Amino acid sequence: MRVRALWWEDGALALVDQRELPGRMVVRRVRTVPQVAEAIRTMVVRGAPAIGVAAAYGMALAARSGVARTRAAKLLRATRPTAVDLFAGIETVDRAWARGDDPLGAAESYRERVVEECRRIGEAGAPLLRRAHGVLTHCNAGALATVEWGTALAPIRVARDRGADLFVYVDETRPLLQGARLTAWELAREHIPHAVIADNAAGHYLASGDIDVVIVGADRIARNGDFANKIGTYEKAVVARENGVPFYVAAPWTTFDARRADGRAIPVEERSPLEVLELAGHRLAPRGSDARNPAFDVTPARFVRGFVTPDGVVPPAKIPEALRRRTAVVAGP
Amino acid sequence: MRVRALWWEDGALALVDQRELPGRMVVRRVRTVPQVAEAIRTMVVRGAPAIGVAAAYGMALAARSGVARTRAAKLLRATRPTAVDLFAGIETVDRAWARGDDPLGAAESYRERVVEECRRIGEAGAPLLRRAHGVLTHCNAGALATVEWGTALAPIRVARDRGADLFVYVDETRPLLQGARLTAWELAREHIPHAVIADNAAGHYLASGDIDVVIVGADRIARNGDFANKIGTYEKAVVARENGVPFYVAAPWTTFDARRADGRAIPVEERSPLEVLELAGHRLAPRGSDARNPAFDVTPARFVRGFVTPDGVVPPAKIPEALRRRTAVVAGP
Repeated sequence: MRVRALWWEDGALALVDQRELPGRMVVRRVRTVPQVAEAIRTMVVRGAPAIGVAAAYGMALAARSGVARTRAAKLLRATRPTAVDLFAGIETVDRAWARGDDPLGAAESYRERVVEECRRIGEAGAPLLRRAHGVLTHCNAGALATVEWGTALAPIRVARDRGADLFVYVDETRPLLQGARLTAWELAREHIPHAVIADNAAGHYLASGDIDVVIVGADRIARNGDFANKIGTYEKAVVARENGVPFYVAAPWTTFDARRADGRAIPVEERSPLEVLELAGHRLAPRGSDARNPAFDVTPARFVRGFVTPDGVVPPAKIPEALRRRTAVVAGP
Repeated sequence: MRVRALWWEDGALALVDQRELPGRMVVRRVRTVPQVAEAIRTMVVRGAPAIGVAAAYGMALAARSGVARTRAAKLLRATRPTAVDLFAGIETVDRAWARGDDPLGAAESYRERVVEECRRIGEAGAPLLRRAHGVLTHCNAGALATVEWGTALAPIRVARDRGADLFVYVDETRPLLQGARLTAWELAREHIPHAVIADNAAGHYLASGDIDVVIVGADRIARNGDFANKIGTYEKAVVARENGVPFYVAAPWTTFDARRADGRAIPVEERSPLEVLELAGHRLAPRGSDARNPAFDVTPARFVRGFVTPDGVVPPAKIPEALRRRTAVVAGP
């Protein structure tokens, strides 16, 4: 069965608790906007497109339970700062609600749009992997991060279905191990050949030639192509370029931040030091040591060969044009 | 009290079991050469200079327990392939034994020489850190890795004693977490300000300017300055150069492999996938997933500003000359 991160069921938002994977499949049903906010903050649901959809449903749940529109939006906006999809999901339902449309209907359409965009990312990106052997990905940019299909994983899925002979190198992605826990889980379910590697080992395989293409997701993409993604993405991009290995970023249109000229002021979330100092209740570092834990980094556009969008592969310099064309399509004639 | 990785005591080699740190301080006493080999292979003792010294004592223990010289050397050589110090330690005692000198005396001298070289590395490297604020180090190149002082940590210790205002960014160093467990433990004991970071976060702090110098140890340095060190070192070196941050490698002379022209054929140990897939008995990745686990990578000399040796800071191009001068000193007039 196809992996899904969340769905609407019996008046509740059902979320696969991603903190429990791969050990257990636990589905949490949330019915109020504070519960949705808490689920986003504590990373029951994570991944830029998926938290956007969860927040859209959070707005719909607020409408059904009599929470004021602006209060609900404020609560959801305060959960996580980096992924722009979060704000897109909130804004979409907020606007529908304000003009008297059904908030749940707006959330459903938002979800459908994200899922459809991810499917088209798979189509657009698969040709890039036709001649690849080793593909590196970082964090989880799969179905769990995007509701269905994935961003970075969508082209891998499509290329694989079309017979490409791919081997996926999965960065484990410390500190929260979204690669080892979630990406590996998705790939294992679909029998896509892969190996988990310590984040430290990616450079070794980029230099050896075993990895011949890198594809990752994004949390926010500025107009010039600078983008924020899971901490460590920047290192992979620098080392890929050093070795002449093409580096692609796959994202739906909700991840593009048309209001932001470049990556300099993208807010980077700093999470608890305990995510680094402890694992599964086990203390890794000595008691006297502290940690720093930025959850994202910003990679300059010059390291990106292309953005894999629902409408094709767009080089960084063409983003403004693609966004203008898209706005024209959305606004209609 | 000063940290020591190992010492000779009552006819046994006493080893701090580095797998138990920082949780518990367990000292294991080994009395036979198979026990020493096992301790090196299972990383009770690790770090290139320290395993060289442990192997030297292993030869001495072999002599005392009637194990043949060539058999003992073979057993110890088969433990780990990458660090050249291992072979230097074995060879030093092997030669003494072959010419009828006391093997234990030879092992003791070898240890004293390594400790003294590390002390001098501290003196030679401290001036490089005089104006630094943020220092990045990878893995553990401290007293635990070298018997006393450390290689990369020796200049940090000396600079700190001389009043430098340093903050050390400690890469946690997956998969075995030598940074989070061992380097943090050494720094915490000596109240040197530091924070553990996920290996993924180093690039973020190199790009932000928070880290203004990088210093690491090495497992083997070729004549042209290519060097092997803990997996992930190569990524840090590439990203440091991208950001104009100087990158130094600190090592005693036993880590230089004068017989090797460059890094191309340095053997890189591949360790068990379980080191990546599990942590403290806890399975991280799904059952259906495998891992790859290269323990080292090779960084080309062009990324290195200088090698911090017991006799001063040597740029890559001057290594052959430094090695010739040193051989001349050792051989005498």
